[in-house]
Amino acid sequence: MSSTQGQVIRCKAAVAWEPGKPLVIEEVEVAPPQAMEVRLKILFTSLCHTDVYFWEAKGQTPIFPRIFGHEAAGIVESVGEGVTDLKPGDHVLPVFTGECKECRHCKSEESNMCDLLRINTDRGVMLNDGKSRFSINGKPIYHFVGTSTFSEYTVVHVGCVAKIDPEAPLDKVCVLSCGISTGLGATLNVAKPPKGSSVAIFGLGAVGLAAAEGARIAGASRIIGVDLNSNRFEEAKNFGVTEFVNPKDYNKPVQEVIAEMTNGGVDRSVECTGSINAMISAFECVHDGWGVAVLVGVPNKDDAFKTHPINVLNEKTLKGTFFGNYKPRSDLPSVVEKYMKKRSTRHLNTC
Amino acid sequence: MSSTQGQVIRCKAAVAWEPGKPLVIEEVEVAPPQAMEVRLKILFTSLCHTDVYFWEAKGQTPIFPRIFGHEAAGIVESVGEGVTDLKPGDHVLPVFTGECKECRHCKSEESNMCDLLRINTDRGVMLNDGKSRFSINGKPIYHFVGTSTFSEYTVVHVGCVAKIDPEAPLDKVCVLSCGISTGLGATLNVAKPPKGSSVAIFGLGAVGLAAAEGARIAGASRIIGVDLNSNRFEEAKNFGVTEFVNPKDYNKPVQEVIAEMTNGGVDRSVECTGSINAMISAFECVHDGWGVAVLVGVPNKDDAFKTHPINVLNEKTLKGTFFGNYKPRSDLPSVVEKYMKKRSTRHLNTC
Repeated sequence: MSSTQGQVIRCKAAVAWEPGKPLVIEEVEVAPPQAMEVRLKILFTSLCHTDVYFWEAKGQTPIFPRIFGHEAAGIVESVGEGVTDLKPGDHVLPVFTGECKECRHCKSEESNMCDLLRINTDRGVMLNDGKSRFSINGKPIYHFVGTSTFSEYTVVHVGCVAKIDPEAPLDKVCVLSCGISTGLGATLNVAKPPKGSSVAIFGLGAVGLAAAEGARIAGASRIIGVDLNSNRFEEAKNFGVTEFVNPKDYNKPVQEVIAEMTNGGVDRSVECTGSINAMISAFECVHDGWGVAVLVGVPNKDDAFKTHPINVLNEKTLKGTFFGNYKPRSDLPSVVEKYMKKRSTRHLNTC
Repeated sequence: MSSTQGQVIRCKAAVAWEPGKPLVIEEVEVAPPQAMEVRLKILFTSLCHTDVYFWEAKGQTPIFPRIFGHEAAGIVESVGEGVTDLKPGDHVLPVFTGECKECRHCKSEESNMCDLLRINTDRGVMLNDGKSRFSINGKPIYHFVGTSTFSEYTVVHVGCVAKIDPEAPLDKVCVLSCGISTGLGATLNVAKPPKGSSVAIFGLGAVGLAAAEGARIAGASRIIGVDLNSNRFEEAKNFGVTEFVNPKDYNKPVQEVIAEMTNGGVDRSVECTGSINAMISAFECVHDGWGVAVLVGVPNKDDAFKTHPINVLNEKTLKGTFFGNYKPRSDLPSVVEKYMKKRSTRHLNTC
């Protein structure tokens, strides 16, 4: 049993006091976990664009002061009442979305959008008592997407914690708790490209590269990377991308360019930019009859996806995915295993 | 061997001389079938709204004089060179789209959008020589979607002819060559509602009723019919519809009404109206995480399907279908069999 169990822990955290202002390293107090909660010692955390987006707080509900961070790895320090499947010392990935294992979504084979623990960017408190576990001099510091990993210790709902192989290098697998799994799962779990098929990946950032890696694992024979930044193309080859299209090099829509390259369209496309135009292009560039487009990128709140309905009637399918359709507790350990076996994410360490 | 084989046949046909003007019963000459063509004696034909749409020719390429008609049943009178799987006397359904059995679509399990014989409303001639087989005093009368069944005899590409059980009553099964199969297949082949699921059907015309029948066959437990005409609700009960929504009865979007009725949305929806607003509602009314919306209705050419991309990212799927994803030659005989066994289309004769 840890000596800190049941005690308030004082530790360092990067606190965002105001939107868009530099984070400040502060000493914070982290309360013990309550029912169905787990307190984690965070060993590694990375920075995701979603942290930046909500730190800038342009248009969303501003909740400050707040501790951001959600791509991380750590070790269980103590567990609250009712937590039976985790114990101090377990190696874990906290996840920005959860899996209660009880709701219709958790019981559905198709969904990972848990009714209880689905991502909620507007909530800055814990579910159990509607309060924060972080404070400075008694003043609450709010949580972010239930993880707040920019802190040496954090408190997370047990449904948002994936227990992983203790042999996994936490400095590497921390990135599996968000973007990499999102991209990989979008291809492997949702687009499901048949062996020998053609796949277009829109956006060659971390998510898009992971999506390309998924296509490589699935055995796609043509993986077409689309990005406005041609500097990304060389690196993308390491993730299985075989051809590149920079839309700026053409004076026609990129969906037409891709249709010409592929005799009518790709078999699958995965959109990883969040740009509404890329979403529309990704849908329109798949082949009629059997093409499937998968949207991954998070759009702006005023965006409208717009296409002529004949594109749908021509038997193209439009799907979306959230966190690559992975259920955090059930599925994430197997993604870590994939990395450990170097089978499916052999290039991960080159990120 | 028929005595008319190789001869021009003179027969009656309903000719559309001009857009929107009454059809005129004329004596026409029907040339013998050329390579890969079949000449059919049409015994029964019905009228589909698509005939009316192209007869009105508001906005589409007007091709006149023309013989409309595409929902029909008949008997093979003679076959052209190269036709081996049909012979005079075979009972058949001519179909407005075809199946060459050679192209990528025909070889794909997912598509029925044959590269060679896919519906082409702008073509008024036969593929073999680019000419019409109909004439009056040497002046060509054009074909419509390769069928032109408003004639006692017509010439059709062999790829657009489904050979059916000779015991099938042609006066009944003629309607299976378009709308009924389109609706039935949209549900059974594309939406695929699990047993016990909820399904919304938008539009309770012939296509929508067939879609509802598909949901009943699949074992859906709630089948919600949506139509602006409440008079259709009583008849729809015969096709399995269990609940009704008339959007005019509410002062909020019908997708919200359906979401409230179903604790967040239906498992599947099938849109059979062609109205762009119904298409958007049909997509937005399915449940996040697992909902699938299938578009069937043919939109206007200037329509735009518009939705917030978050609806896609919330793991709703948008699919479209053409002719219920049935391949005309391979699959239509089994639809006729279903009717013959009274299993799946037990209410068909009440249409």
